[in-house]
Amino acid sequence: MTTQQLIQQIQQKKSFLCIGLDVDLTKIPQHLLELEDPIFEFNKAIIDATHDLCVSYKPNTAFYEAYGIKGLQSLQKTIDYINQNHPEIFTIADAKRGDIGNTSTMYAKAFLEDLNFDSVTVAPYMGKDSVEPFLAFKNKHTILLALTSNEGAFDFQTKVSEGKELYKTVIETSKSWKNSENLMYVVGATKADYFTEIRKIVPDSFLLVPGVGAQGGSLQEVCKLGMNKNVGLLINSSRGIIYASNGIDFAQKAREEALKLKLEMALILKSIN
Amino acid sequence: MTTQQLIQQIQQKKSFLCIGLDVDLTKIPQHLLELEDPIFEFNKAIIDATHDLCVSYKPNTAFYEAYGIKGLQSLQKTIDYINQNHPEIFTIADAKRGDIGNTSTMYAKAFLEDLNFDSVTVAPYMGKDSVEPFLAFKNKHTILLALTSNEGAFDFQTKVSEGKELYKTVIETSKSWKNSENLMYVVGATKADYFTEIRKIVPDSFLLVPGVGAQGGSLQEVCKLGMNKNVGLLINSSRGIIYASNGIDFAQKAREEALKLKLEMALILKSIN
Repeated sequence: MTTQQLIQQIQQKKSFLCIGLDVDLTKIPQHLLELEDPIFEFNKAIIDATHDLCVSYKPNTAFYEAYGIKGLQSLQKTIDYINQNHPEIFTIADAKRGDIGNTSTMYAKAFLEDLNFDSVTVAPYMGKDSVEPFLAFKNKHTILLALTSNEGAFDFQTKVSEGKELYKTVIETSKSWKNSENLMYVVGATKADYFTEIRKIVPDSFLLVPGVGAQGGSLQEVCKLGMNKNVGLLINSSRGIIYASNGIDFAQKAREEALKLKLEMALILKSIN
Repeated sequence: MTTQQLIQQIQQKKSFLCIGLDVDLTKIPQHLLELEDPIFEFNKAIIDATHDLCVSYKPNTAFYEAYGIKGLQSLQKTIDYINQNHPEIFTIADAKRGDIGNTSTMYAKAFLEDLNFDSVTVAPYMGKDSVEPFLAFKNKHTILLALTSNEGAFDFQTKVSEGKELYKTVIETSKSWKNSENLMYVVGATKADYFTEIRKIVPDSFLLVPGVGAQGGSLQEVCKLGMNKNVGLLINSSRGIIYASNGIDFAQKAREEALKLKLEMALILKSIN
C-alpha cells in the first residue's frame, strides 16, 4: 500500500484508528474456546464488526508466537482474511524486530512478503544496517520505535547526548537512511508534549501512537500537537476495544468502543477543515 | 540450566564455543533439499558432528521465521533434539525481542517455557519493564544486546550521555533490575578494546560474543581483555562453521572448523591456569 492510499482511506472513513489484535486466550469469550481456531474466530468477528470504523489492524506477534505453530497459523489466517476481504486496510505486524543486515532481510521477507503485511515495527538499537533491509521493500513501510508508551521508555530513549534525547537522534539519523521515505515512527500518546518536538524533525511522516485510553494518553492532546496536513497519525487501541466485553456480545461491544473513538476522530477532522 | 552448570560444562569440554544455527536454504548442501525437513536435517548433522566441541547452540529465529510454519516446526525439532540428546548444552534463542511488560511475558513464555530454550536475546531500547518479564524465569537467562558487532552499532550504542556511552548505561542500568543475576550481555568481538571497560561494570557476567572470524574479530584479543575467573565468555561462530562446505562432507568440514576454534580455546584456557 502506498502512503497516498492510506491517506485516502483516512479521508474516506473519517478515521485514523488502528485496532490492535492482541489475542490472549485467557481474556476472550469462553464460547470461542470450543472452536478449532479460537484466535482466528475472535479476530474475524472483531474485523467483521469494526472494519468500516478503522483504517488499520495491528496484530502483535508476541501473542501469536506464544501459542507456537497454532498461533502462527492463526496469524496467517488473520492477515489473509484482512487482505482478501478488506484490501484497503493498512496492516501492521507489530514485531519490533531488528538484527544484523542479512538477518533483518529474513525478517523483512517473512513479514512484508510471505505474510504480506503492509508494514512492520522495528527496533532501532542496532542502527542503520539493521533497519535498511526493511526499507528496501517497495510500497511497504517500516515503523521505527522512537518513543514508546511504557515506563521503561525513560530508561534510555530520553537520555540526552550532544544536547538531544536519544529518540530524537534516532528519528533524525533515520532520515538519512536509504529509502527513508518508507519510514513511520512509534510515538507513545502518554507523552503528548513530545509531539511538538517530533513534528519539527518529521513534519510529514506518519506516527503510530499507542497509549491512548488504557495507558492514559489523551486523543485530543495528541491530535492538537501531532497532526499534520495529511493527518499523519494512526491511533492504536487494543484492549479498550477488543476486550470491551467477554460475553457473546463481544464483537458488538468492540464495535461500540471503536465507534466512540471513530466519532471523536471525525469531529477532530471536521474541526480542522 | 544454572550458570554453574554452564561453567562446569566449559571446564569439562575445555571449550566456550557457541555455534550459530542460522540455516539458509540457499546455502546448505543441495542433497538435503530432497528431504522432508532440510533445515532440521542440516542442524541434526551439524549437532551430531560438533556437540562435543561446543557448549552452546544459538539458532537465530529470523532464519526459521523466514520459512513460516515449516520453519517454526524445524526450530521446534531442533531445540527438542538438542534438549533430548545433549541436555548439557546451553541453548540460546537469538530472537532480539522486547516489548511492553505483558507482551514481553508472552515472548518469554514462548522461548523459555514452550520451546524450552535456556536463554533468549533481548533488545534494551524499551527499558526495564520490557526486560524484567524475561528475568522472572528461574534458571533461565536473558542476554541483553549491549554492543553489537555490526556497523550500525555506532549509530546509537556509542552515543555519550552524562559522560557515558549508551551501551555502558544499558549494562549499568540493567544491574538494578529485578533478578538481574539472570542477565548476560551481547558484546561484539569486532571492538575488543571495549571489553576492558565492560569488565569494570560486569566483572562476573557472561558475555555472548559474535563477530569472531567472518566479521573479523580476534579470539586472542577478546579473551585477553574479556575473560574472567569463570571464563565468562561464549564465543559465537555461525557461517564460518556451518557453511565450511556445501558438499556431502559439510558436517565433517563443520567439525574441522569447530575443532580449530575449540583447540585454540583449550590452549587459551591452559595458558591461564
